[in-house]
Amino acid sequence: MGLVKVGVLGATGSVGQRFTLLLDSHPDFELYALGASARSAGKPYKDAVTWKQTNLMPEFAKNIPVEQCTPEGRFAECEIVFSGLDSDVAGDIETAFAAAGKIVVSNASNFRRAADVPLIVPIVNPEHMSVVEKRVQEAKKEGKPRPGFIVCISNCSTAGLVAPLKPLVDAFGPIDALTTTTLQAISGAGFSPGVSGIDILDNIVPYIGGEEEKIEWETRKILGGVSADGNGFALIPEDEMKVSAQCNRVPVSDGHTECISFRFASRPAPSVDQIKATLAEYQCEAFKLGCHSAPKQTIHVLEETNRPQPRLDRDRDAGYGVSVGRVREDPVLDFKMVVLSHNTVIGAAGAGVLIAEILKAKNVLN
Amino acid sequence: MGLVKVGVLGATGSVGQRFTLLLDSHPDFELYALGASARSAGKPYKDAVTWKQTNLMPEFAKNIPVEQCTPEGRFAECEIVFSGLDSDVAGDIETAFAAAGKIVVSNASNFRRAADVPLIVPIVNPEHMSVVEKRVQEAKKEGKPRPGFIVCISNCSTAGLVAPLKPLVDAFGPIDALTTTTLQAISGAGFSPGVSGIDILDNIVPYIGGEEEKIEWETRKILGGVSADGNGFALIPEDEMKVSAQCNRVPVSDGHTECISFRFASRPAPSVDQIKATLAEYQCEAFKLGCHSAPKQTIHVLEETNRPQPRLDRDRDAGYGVSVGRVREDPVLDFKMVVLSHNTVIGAAGAGVLIAEILKAKNVLN
Amino acid sequence: MGLVKVGVLGATGSVGQRFTLLLDSHPDFELYALGASARSAGKPYKDAVTWKQTNLMPEFAKNIPVEQCTPEGRFAECEIVFSGLDSDVAGDIETAFAAAGKIVVSNASNFRRAADVPLIVPIVNPEHMSVVEKRVQEAKKEGKPRPGFIVCISNCSTAGLVAPLKPLVDAFGPIDALTTTTLQAISGAGFSPGVSGIDILDNIVPYIGGEEEKIEWETRKILGGVSADGNGFALIPEDEMKVSAQCNRVPVSDGHTECISFRFASRPAPSVDQIKATLAEYQCEAFKLGCHSAPKQTIHVLEETNRPQPRLDRDRDAGYGVSVGRVREDPVLDFKMVVLSHNTVIGAAGAGVLIAEILKAKNVLN
Amino acid sequence: MGLVKVGVLGATGSVGQRFTLLLDSHPDFELYALGASARSAGKPYKDAVTWKQTNLMPEFAKNIPVEQCTPEGRFAECEIVFSGLDSDVAGDIETAFAAAGKIVVSNASNFRRAADVPLIVPIVNPEHMSVVEKRVQEAKKEGKPRPGFIVCISNCSTAGLVAPLKPLVDAFGPIDALTTTTLQAISGAGFSPGVSGIDILDNIVPYIGGEEEKIEWETRKILGGVSADGNGFALIPEDEMKVSAQCNRVPVSDGHTECISFRFASRPAPSVDQIKATLAEYQCEAFKLGCHSAPKQTIHVLEETNRPQPRLDRDRDAGYGVSVGRVREDPVLDFKMVVLSHNTVIGAAGAGVLIAEILKAKNVLN
Repeated sequence: MGLVKVGVLGATGSVGQRFTLLLDSHPDFELYALGASARSAGKPYKDAVTWKQTNLMPEFAKNIPVEQCTPEGRFAECEIVFSGLDSDVAGDIETAFAAAGKIVVSNASNFRRAADVPLIVPIVNPEHMSVVEKRVQEAKKEGKPRPGFIVCISNCSTAGLVAPLKPLVDAFGPIDALTTTTLQAISGAGFSPGVSGIDILDNIVPYIGGEEEKIEWETRKILGGVSADGNGFALIPEDEMKVSAQCNRVPVSDGHTECISFRFASRPAPSVDQIKATLAEYQCEAFKLGCHSAPKQTIHVLEETNRPQPRLDRDRDAGYGVSVGRVREDPVLDFKMVVLSHNTVIGAAGAGVLIAEILKAKNVLN
Repeated sequence: MGLVKVGVLGATGSVGQRFTLLLDSHPDFELYALGASARSAGKPYKDAVTWKQTNLMPEFAKNIPVEQCTPEGRFAECEIVFSGLDSDVAGDIETAFAAAGKIVVSNASNFRRAADVPLIVPIVNPEHMSVVEKRVQEAKKEGKPRPGFIVCISNCSTAGLVAPLKPLVDAFGPIDALTTTTLQAISGAGFSPGVSGIDILDNIVPYIGGEEEKIEWETRKILGGVSADGNGFALIPEDEMKVSAQCNRVPVSDGHTECISFRFASRPAPSVDQIKATLAEYQCEAFKLGCHSAPKQTIHVLEETNRPQPRLDRDRDAGYGVSVGRVREDPVLDFKMVVLSHNTVIGAAGAGVLIAEILKAKNVLN
Repeated sequence: MGLVKVGVLGATGSVGQRFTLLLDSHPDFELYALGASARSAGKPYKDAVTWKQTNLMPEFAKNIPVEQCTPEGRFAECEIVFSGLDSDVAGDIETAFAAAGKIVVSNASNFRRAADVPLIVPIVNPEHMSVVEKRVQEAKKEGKPRPGFIVCISNCSTAGLVAPLKPLVDAFGPIDALTTTTLQAISGAGFSPGVSGIDILDNIVPYIGGEEEKIEWETRKILGGVSADGNGFALIPEDEMKVSAQCNRVPVSDGHTECISFRFASRPAPSVDQIKATLAEYQCEAFKLGCHSAPKQTIHVLEETNRPQPRLDRDRDAGYGVSVGRVREDPVLDFKMVVLSHNTVIGAAGAGVLIAEILKAKNVLN
Repeated sequence: MGLVKVGVLGATGSVGQRFTLLLDSHPDFELYALGASARSAGKPYKDAVTWKQTNLMPEFAKNIPVEQCTPEGRFAECEIVFSGLDSDVAGDIETAFAAAGKIVVSNASNFRRAADVPLIVPIVNPEHMSVVEKRVQEAKKEGKPRPGFIVCISNCSTAGLVAPLKPLVDAFGPIDALTTTTLQAISGAGFSPGVSGIDILDNIVPYIGGEEEKIEWETRKILGGVSADGNGFALIPEDEMKVSAQCNRVPVSDGHTECISFRFASRPAPSVDQIKATLAEYQCEAFKLGCHSAPKQTIHVLEETNRPQPRLDRDRDAGYGVSVGRVREDPVLDFKMVVLSHNTVIGAAGAGVLIAEILKAKNVLN
């Protein structure tokens, strides 16, 4: 009892399967509805899905009947839906759920740039959710039911990039130039079709469609503040923070590595030791709120010269912690360092679950 | 007849094996002497070596008796020696060979920073060899025998970096800021022990000992000119060209990928189209000299959005050509692009053979 | 002049691309027609294809207009067509081409079991083509035009299995029990979609749909003889040669490894040395006929304990040679050994080209 | 309190690190002593070891002082030592510990063939430990202290092979012919040097030194019984159970896949369904004894056509469970199937810990 009923949209896909795993025995949520395409509707989940996770399909999910993605049936009873939908269908479906009063936590990119939709990395900028909290408070005051709304999960490589930058900006002021070269795992591409084996074995693909633009834009929204009226977001202007991304797909299953460098707007710049100390001391608000999935250590600062490495470090704090290594001065900008984040946890489904936990902790739910 | 006798130092190692392959049926050179440690000396090559190349061991090499690395025995008859020695032994041995009048073309890093030793990427800066040519001419004038000397092959990732930059600097003037993030193949690490399988499978290692320093320093020597007196090299000062490298080992067998970005000192910067045209039109001097191994097309400018890729592009021009793709403007510096070079060809043994071909074409040999 | 005009069906697919590469500058054949689906028809080849080979697209092919797969247009002028069609469309198309008098050399599996269609591994059983030669001779005698016919290329792992067995059966009599466990490369699965990267990275898939049945059946046709009347094939009965296959997909790009064991029907069995000598001495008929692509050494018997290995041995004789290693006694059957064959050369497109060369050498063409 | 003090020999190596991980917070054992070579002795563990596990080094272990491998110092207080020593040093050291009254659970191969040493796969033949229990009981009766003894862990691929065979032999009688072709992970080779990356990327190595002989011999000891006098083991004679192994190293990090086939001595053979049911119902004695690490489900019978797969199935029951798939009739022997086992858990260190748990559960300890 006391569990909030939730649903998953796009439940048979790669992201949907991970939502299902993460919601197994969750202390706050009961996964109650699973949505997929008309072709799957009506089947028990275990027959509708081609399960591809390293963890076995949770028992509880096996016999949940898959439904179409409309805010009816079992979805009518859910307060939150997690969306793993592809962006070609996510727009209409997510809009319909929000209109029906549901909280939609979406991994799709459709609404990330919407002026009133928070774009959230839960270990970084949960304060952006004040924009929807405000709408909820206003409705309450007026005696209206809690309105539906959408919260977007950031792009996976954006998440890894902004995680260490946020505490640094808080401590040392704005960053005016930022570069990242990513080495991204293949799990992020899903599996229908995802990245072909023959394309990635003994190979690098130095391009991921749309990824560089996402990183360069989302970073400016996430590291920016809430607008003065509290109703939207104050993007950092392009000329105040120049961001440049170069994205590569590499033969790694999980875990995005990013080689980043950055320059602070203010002089003098802090020292390497100050950078490291600030990162190590950072404690995300979700942890302070007692959220179940929040990492105990938000950012792990590794001192070994050859870390972080995806295979060794991606699972820290169950994938919710971010690892940073090789912090050092950069001859071109101020500092360079290597960041590793788990692309399917803090960079996708895992972020969604933690966002929902934060909403619950902040009493935004009914 | 007419073939120049040459030898290989460190012939049983990874680089030495590649020299042996490249010298099979070479139109200019006869591989006559093979040197290794005392443990191998006396054995026919086929018994002394653990052959690990995808091409079979050349027939001609199988029964050459391996000798110790001294300028005696079969080495006494060689005019050129290619050195694949490890740097812990290369110093003394290469010095001894040069003192004995041999031309030493070395893949070791020991003498790369020496004031009178050319550091050569043969498709980039063969004009640096004028420093040794001058010494040879002076000796000839004085009726002395051609003196021995050392020429160094650059570090493998330096080679890929400077190849496209040279024609750009020639066309558009100095570069004052340059960054590269490398994704380096494992073949460059040799195989005793090289990179362990368990360390690199489904993994990235974001560190290669000494590599970043080599790139940052060697680039300033190679892109700099010959000193005014013609006896040495005019390094570009650190503050005139800031270079920053971040090096990663990736699960790729051959072919280093580099994501680079750079800024010209002069304004206005050229256009992307000018950059591409300049790269495509560049013809290295070695090709003009008719050198056997020189690439017909020095730099392949690829227009496909997702190229170059190591598995598809590393063997262009037998590994002597460099591929460049994704040339585009960079929000932080001026331009960014992806460069792929074959680390064991233009980045190591192959460069050595082409250097020797240039020396022959320029009549520096006896 | 003197070149036989040929076409490729399914020219934009994985197998079709390899046919195109193999026919570049071929001494016997001129690739004149390229067929694909209606969607591609009308475009020059370079615009219709997503080229995925490590060798660059041959210049000659770039501007050949792609046509639909009917025996008209440029195909009307071709005597031979190589089919890389998927089996869901190959049946009707290949039948139409044969009916139009074309020689169809097919990589599809549709007609492999047809009673009058030779199933050929060109280094193994070219004598099976006597069945079509006979039809050609009879037509000639009757003053009729050469009839069209179909010749099938075997399944890729069947090719590697039967290559060493044929000379052994010729020398030592029938094999009555045979097992193979395959470790198959991913290139054999094509690339639309082929094997997904996330399915094969750090993984093994112990199943390839239909593959085990193909090996178990095709081996009995290929190692069997021509029927007494010369019009068909005498399959070895299942109870005279028991064949058991276990097939695995492994993270290897090219080259199928097979761990095989077998027992001869006659006693005493030969010695290991006799086995090796027989394999090493075997010279395929295609080589004796002087065919361009025939391997000089049909079977390479490797003595190193840890060979053959795909990366080191798959390209022997340009992929037309098969490597055998670790020949030793087997406690359960008589012998066990490891066989490596190049799945896209002798196991697919390459076999097709060599089959056509044999037909030409035997004067079966017009 | 109540915890049995234990030590690890060879604690800085690959197997030793895994023992250390498995003993973190163990309910029965306190890891108290860590032994390594003289070079490491005296240092705290965290400084002596190059940690290469995906799990972080346990806090408790970091400051344990590493000692030399003699039954003195902290080892004097330990009742059990787990040995991850290399076989070139394991012989003398393990003998010395046993002579000093210690129970040695060893992953080395030195004593596996010793007539009085149990060779144990803990989910298969714990009853073999009755041979040492008997010696312990006799000493107790005579009022003597419990004697030291050695128990050997089997070879990793032997473990996966015998796990499903044991319940089948128990149910359907002896197996008289057995073949296995293994696809073995690289973690089993350790990391100094282990398998080189360049040797295994895009490659298969069809040979593992000594492995085939180990499988062929160990299987006959493990599936045999205890000798009539209870003091040793009754090996199955070679001609009563013919075993043939073909071993391959594949680019997989963890998890050995084996394609096995086997024939029962008795006719008629059981059905495929009977085989599956017997495997699924099998419950290992360790689980019945309540051992902490014992798998709840000893053998997972998978019905999906393409399972088991290492990446998806290796971690079942924390690596202590074995997965079996594709059970089907075999044209040559009776049945064939695919077995997957975790080579570093049930095939190495994990087996050692479970063996010790069984000894405790059976009151063999002091």
